[in-house]
Amino acid sequence: MAVWRTIGVIGGMGPAATAAFMAHLVAGVTATQDNDHPRVLIDSNPHVPDRNAAALTGAASPGPALAAMAAALAGQGAHILAMPCNAAHGWADAITAAPFVSMIDAALAEALAHGPRSIGVLAVGATLALDLYGRACPVPVLAGDLAVVQPCVDAIKAGDRSAATRAGLADEAARLVAAGADVIIAACTEVPLLLRQDDVTVPLIDSTAALARATLAAARLPDKASS
Amino acid sequence: MAVWRTIGVIGGMGPAATAAFMAHLVAGVTATQDNDHPRVLIDSNPHVPDRNAAALTGAASPGPALAAMAAALAGQGAHILAMPCNAAHGWADAITAAPFVSMIDAALAEALAHGPRSIGVLAVGATLALDLYGRACPVPVLAGDLAVVQPCVDAIKAGDRSAATRAGLADEAARLVAAGADVIIAACTEVPLLLRQDDVTVPLIDSTAALARATLAAARLPDKASS
Repeated sequence: MAVWRTIGVIGGMGPAATAAFMAHLVAGVTATQDNDHPRVLIDSNPHVPDRNAAALTGAASPGPALAAMAAALAGQGAHILAMPCNAAHGWADAITAAPFVSMIDAALAEALAHGPRSIGVLAVGATLALDLYGRACPVPVLAGDLAVVQPCVDAIKAGDRSAATRAGLADEAARLVAAGADVIIAACTEVPLLLRQDDVTVPLIDSTAALARATLAAARLPDKASS
Repeated sequence: MAVWRTIGVIGGMGPAATAAFMAHLVAGVTATQDNDHPRVLIDSNPHVPDRNAAALTGAASPGPALAAMAAALAGQGAHILAMPCNAAHGWADAITAAPFVSMIDAALAEALAHGPRSIGVLAVGATLALDLYGRACPVPVLAGDLAVVQPCVDAIKAGDRSAATRAGLADEAARLVAAGADVIIAACTEVPLLLRQDDVTVPLIDSTAALARATLAAARLPDKASS
């Protein structure tokens, strides 16, 4: 039986993305019984100060709320922490209570494994304004047009799962591919709730799924020799 | 904006059912932005002592673990608690740290709203052995054959999503309908991960979805007059 560290999830940004992240954590484990899975502690807190407003207009920082959530999760027994929200990674430095698995690093690692010459990123305010992907990436990053992506993300947060919104994201991905991107990262957790690999002609990296894979890898303890 | 009590989830029995419960909590809210959702604290703990072994063979009780999880969630700020596992409700009396929304009551209320003469229940060990549905129900309850349902549930916990397992559950539901049940309750949280309304000729109550609806109803605070 695999033995796991307990995973703490700083979530709720948005709640549907956190639910998707939890589903990825479950699906990513080869289990024959409940007990084969890791324990997962989730704080799905949709009341964290808005990340995009903080980056773009100087509104209240989400940092203190994220630090408090991290400390509470560690206090409950979380050994490693993950946060399924790209934009919130602009304040990842506030998360010091336990080792932190970065979603940006996880998604970039999967993108770079394809050997791209440049990477297209579908993201919103804080992720772009703070250049979270570009500053960590050795190849050029092409950003999707915020005027296209932000309304799609807002609609998805409001429950929109329409073909029109999906097509809007697909068209923006196609524009980035035409501009030279040979991998696309769905770099806002709302994007992969609607955009699928079938919609994109190059590899599409789901940042939520990539974070789940990296989190499980970090949480798995080495197998002990069985007697 | 709706104002919510914080929801605490005693989960992990199994983890996929808890992920499904969280998805139902998100989908059940009419939201235009993250902040419209309730805060949800989840302890997905797959290491709770086995409920069915406790009921059937006198193995270690899950009660102390459930009580501890409930107390920790309440300590973190949960105002109401829910537990997306039918069998674990055999030890619901151990959960005293905050008001508790019963899955059994939620599923039965939805079933009884159809005015059934009798109700069929697809459930496993502890739920049947402790008669969790029958003892709370004013109409006769017909139990599915444990020799059929338990292997299906075990397979689903091990990741099986096959047509054969789905058909096994559908056949057992049909047998209960033939015996007089005019509503079927998917009374183990693994069952509705595979069995759908289309598979059953009478109303199928998804106990996980019913609990999510009842939990959101209990968590919603009355609207304040807006100025």
